[in-house]
Amino acid sequence: MKILLVGGTGTIGKRIYWRLQDAHEIITAGSKSGDVQVDMTDPHSIEEMFTKTGKLDAMVVAAGGAPMAPVQELTQEHFYEGIRSKMMGQINLALIGQKHLNPGGSITLTSGILSEDPIALGAVLSTINSAVNGFVIGASGELLRQGIRINVVSPGIVEDSAEAIGSYFPGHNPVPMERVVNGYLKSILGICTGQVIKAY
Amino acid sequence: MKILLVGGTGTIGKRIYWRLQDAHEIITAGSKSGDVQVDMTDPHSIEEMFTKTGKLDAMVVAAGGAPMAPVQELTQEHFYEGIRSKMMGQINLALIGQKHLNPGGSITLTSGILSEDPIALGAVLSTINSAVNGFVIGASGELLRQGIRINVVSPGIVEDSAEAIGSYFPGHNPVPMERVVNGYLKSILGICTGQVIKAY
Repeated sequence: MKILLVGGTGTIGKRIYWRLQDAHEIITAGSKSGDVQVDMTDPHSIEEMFTKTGKLDAMVVAAGGAPMAPVQELTQEHFYEGIRSKMMGQINLALIGQKHLNPGGSITLTSGILSEDPIALGAVLSTINSAVNGFVIGASGELLRQGIRINVVSPGIVEDSAEAIGSYFPGHNPVPMERVVNGYLKSILGICTGQVIKAY
Repeated sequence: MKILLVGGTGTIGKRIYWRLQDAHEIITAGSKSGDVQVDMTDPHSIEEMFTKTGKLDAMVVAAGGAPMAPVQELTQEHFYEGIRSKMMGQINLALIGQKHLNPGGSITLTSGILSEDPIALGAVLSTINSAVNGFVIGASGELLRQGIRINVVSPGIVEDSAEAIGSYFPGHNPVPMERVVNGYLKSILGICTGQVIKAY
């Protein structure tokens, strides 16, 4: 299987890469690192990346972020930062990517536990993660008509991030990396579509 | 109770108005109609509206839209149209409105059934509705610290819209207007917070 992995050198992305590299042809993409470079906030950059990759069997996005701040201090600029990156970055990758997938291909995006299990300072991420989940639920039927599956993995705080940012997630149980990677494998190698795959 | 009702002359808004007007002081807001005018896509216009209304006990938003199109034809412009209106319009009303509510006040937003029960052409609305739900879930804890509640009513296809747009929702059961209005009353007059109140 020929798989594009956007965010292939990130905390989660590199684990997906290690797990799939032996049996599959992986093309990693990143803003600065990876086999190909892409600015996921820019649709033209995304188009350009797909002309380099050629047709794919699967595309996975484990990239994109959003700022954290107290609700009392939030302005629309905080939200638009997350919208441009983790929300529309992933949605644009899916919208443009649908034209570069082989029949039977799949798209796997990334959201996160804050969509349903909020933390202080996390309102933007709760919003953006929910938007990505909603896109996958909303788009899956029409993509299936084209023979394309789409799912989103929603990880909890992952073990490899627990030391750095775990204090923002009091009482959350860090998720073993293998369990998180399994969420992506279920989407890439399985048969499900329109699913929010909870990795927690 | 002094209540701001954004979208007070719309399909759902006017029903909320009729139900609450006898026992409460309602200020209706709309882009062109209503007691005060507001462009919900413009934070400056929202700020200006709140200087006219003064302090409130509750604010309700039953306004905002998003375009419908097949996933194959969607571009980011379709999404940004919905982001500016139904998503960030409502979120900006809540962010700015939190500073204009009396202690014990509440915010009630509107999403819709497509967040979990998708239809063809509805991927943008599924995304935007989910984002609004996620914002309410994410923001509720920090708003509660200020003594403010926030909920979102997620209506199905409502009876008063069934003739005009029901054909987009095959097999959906139109929701009686009274049931939809009850969702808003639960949020405005009840004690819940951080809830997605499903009116279907």
